[in-house]
Amino acid sequence: MQLNFNENFERMEKRYLFSEITARVAAYKSREGGSQKVISLGIGDVTLPIARCVANEMARAAEEMATREGFCGYGETRGLHELRGAISSRYKRLGAHLDEDEIFINDGSKSDLGNIFDIFGDIEALIPSPAYPVYLDACTMSGKRARILETSAKNGFLPSPEGLPKNPFLIFLCSPNNPTGATFSREELCEWVDFALCSGSLIIFDAAYEGFVRSEKIPRSIFEISGAKDCAIEVCSFSKNAGFTGIRCGWSVIPRSLSPVHELWSRRQATKFNGASYIAQRGAIAALSREGERESFLRTDYYLKNAKILAEALKEKEIWFVGGENSPYLWLKCPNGMKSWTFFDFLLEHAGIVGTPGVGFGEGGEGYFRFSSFASREDVLEAVVRFNKWL
Amino acid sequence: MQLNFNENFERMEKRYLFSEITARVAAYKSREGGSQKVISLGIGDVTLPIARCVANEMARAAEEMATREGFCGYGETRGLHELRGAISSRYKRLGAHLDEDEIFINDGSKSDLGNIFDIFGDIEALIPSPAYPVYLDACTMSGKRARILETSAKNGFLPSPEGLPKNPFLIFLCSPNNPTGATFSREELCEWVDFALCSGSLIIFDAAYEGFVRSEKIPRSIFEISGAKDCAIEVCSFSKNAGFTGIRCGWSVIPRSLSPVHELWSRRQATKFNGASYIAQRGAIAALSREGERESFLRTDYYLKNAKILAEALKEKEIWFVGGENSPYLWLKCPNGMKSWTFFDFLLEHAGIVGTPGVGFGEGGEGYFRFSSFASREDVLEAVVRFNKWL
Repeated sequence: MQLNFNENFERMEKRYLFSEITARVAAYKSREGGSQKVISLGIGDVTLPIARCVANEMARAAEEMATREGFCGYGETRGLHELRGAISSRYKRLGAHLDEDEIFINDGSKSDLGNIFDIFGDIEALIPSPAYPVYLDACTMSGKRARILETSAKNGFLPSPEGLPKNPFLIFLCSPNNPTGATFSREELCEWVDFALCSGSLIIFDAAYEGFVRSEKIPRSIFEISGAKDCAIEVCSFSKNAGFTGIRCGWSVIPRSLSPVHELWSRRQATKFNGASYIAQRGAIAALSREGERESFLRTDYYLKNAKILAEALKEKEIWFVGGENSPYLWLKCPNGMKSWTFFDFLLEHAGIVGTPGVGFGEGGEGYFRFSSFASREDVLEAVVRFNKWL
Repeated sequence: MQLNFNENFERMEKRYLFSEITARVAAYKSREGGSQKVISLGIGDVTLPIARCVANEMARAAEEMATREGFCGYGETRGLHELRGAISSRYKRLGAHLDEDEIFINDGSKSDLGNIFDIFGDIEALIPSPAYPVYLDACTMSGKRARILETSAKNGFLPSPEGLPKNPFLIFLCSPNNPTGATFSREELCEWVDFALCSGSLIIFDAAYEGFVRSEKIPRSIFEISGAKDCAIEVCSFSKNAGFTGIRCGWSVIPRSLSPVHELWSRRQATKFNGASYIAQRGAIAALSREGERESFLRTDYYLKNAKILAEALKEKEIWFVGGENSPYLWLKCPNGMKSWTFFDFLLEHAGIVGTPGVGFGEGGEGYFRFSSFASREDVLEAVVRFNKWL
């Protein structure tokens, strides 16, 4: 084949994080046999089953598809009217007025976070480190420039616009943050909106973990901030609150006031996307019903309780961390100045606990470590017993 | 906002085809009232419900998701092992040996046909006209060069490599063809594979309508042709044969011998895609079961019978056409030298029949017209009665 390939792929970082973790765990298990159960605090995937009302609605949708009256072919690319309406109502309860035509249903946030680069020309993306790797990978793949905004323990691993040149950037923000669990206050998010407005930037706000927010002081949507409709897109998902990681459904909000972003994205999607699965969308509608929301609340509460137990244990050991409340993640400083992978090996070898090395989320994460609370209560309690023995 | 946008969007053709059709039909209806029922031979979407066994399997998958044992979170990006295995077995029955690791499950062909441009640098795509508009739109959007390969009645609206310079191209081929219904013989497809091999080109073979092939002489997959594994990708779908246009599941085959295409696509998908819906994939597995395949056969047979009825009517009127067998589409020359939109209006005004103007699929389609057989038998028979009155 003599075609030219996209050379930007060569500039992408090799991502061996999770395969490296899998390999080290397998090696440990074959060495140790079954001497102690390996506990995973490493996964970013939910583990609790979906709500019965959501499952029933999807089953009903599936069965209806086999009937002449209930069959559904191609739907609107931007999603079911009823689902967009339910999301619009949800925003209304947060005090944000977004028309259902400003909502684009997708098959999960990852697609939109990656594909958004399609609509831009030569731009510079502002990407915090550590961060969800998709931001930087998709930026590099598309040949756009990236400016890394390092965060650290000093600012609680929260990026701030202070000291930045007033250039127009495509800014990636995530709160509650993956991987750090840090959350923006209303004031901090206001600063970013002000910066975006006065620099001509566009914020991509990743709200995938908003379902874990319990404090009134923490915005669940960037559209709770005045001015955001003129400088921000929000990408959100049913994955973490309603357990849709396998079902695949999320949404993006692109206000009509963001011209030509709204129009370009519509055209992009009409050309390269045919809508999320009808059955997943019917499930999403059920997840936004009163019963569905109550069930999601119970699930996120379960994980939050896990996070609290882990947070208490870290506090007791006087280990520095952020997150652990309003978030399923805890981001801790490795004890005794250990590097991320050293602590990974230490924890696995001695305590049989798997976590995620912070350096896997960018250089800024070196010396840090992520615990996730998507485990069973039993495992979390057992992990704490082992902490007490080894840390 | 002061960001640079992708200027290629401005070079994309405005696609008003289906909105223009909708508008003209609405105007007709409001003028005519209910004097006669409007019959649609215009849609490219299936209308028969999905098989009961597929619906039941999806319902079961949905219900299992609400149990601790049956819950499924993130799956492998490239799809369920069992589904890829079933597709691999299907190819084996066609005489093509493709490992399940060469199969990438997607949420429908459109996504992959559009996103494939991500992995290329500066290339020239070879795009037949008329064609499914996504090929040219995605090419233009990504800033790649396009060479249009006009087809005409002379070659039965089938593109041929004859006379082409031996440059490396990204070649888009579709058989059975949308919109024309034309199909490649084994020999014609061999010519394309030979051309691709000796010019260093890559073929993207769109096999979305393979389920309509009944003749032994027409390949259902490009991998029935020797040498194709070194120069071709195949994009296929459950949409048209199993009625998955709303459910969203398809696949692409990228042989491992196509290096670095296979590796780049894997990386592209791992970065920007999180897999097709688990429930849709479970439905797809059922669609490939013995019972599922029998049900798909019954459905495609129903549409093929419709196509045959329409073909007979056109033959009787001595109207030139291709397609109508081994395909749900018929592509006819507008009678009396009418242009595509003139014939559209004529047919709607007099016979109350809606079709698709050929020019909507590219300039090469001017003066031609597409009938689709995705209608009820009753409507197709009534359409023939009206033909006899008006044509």
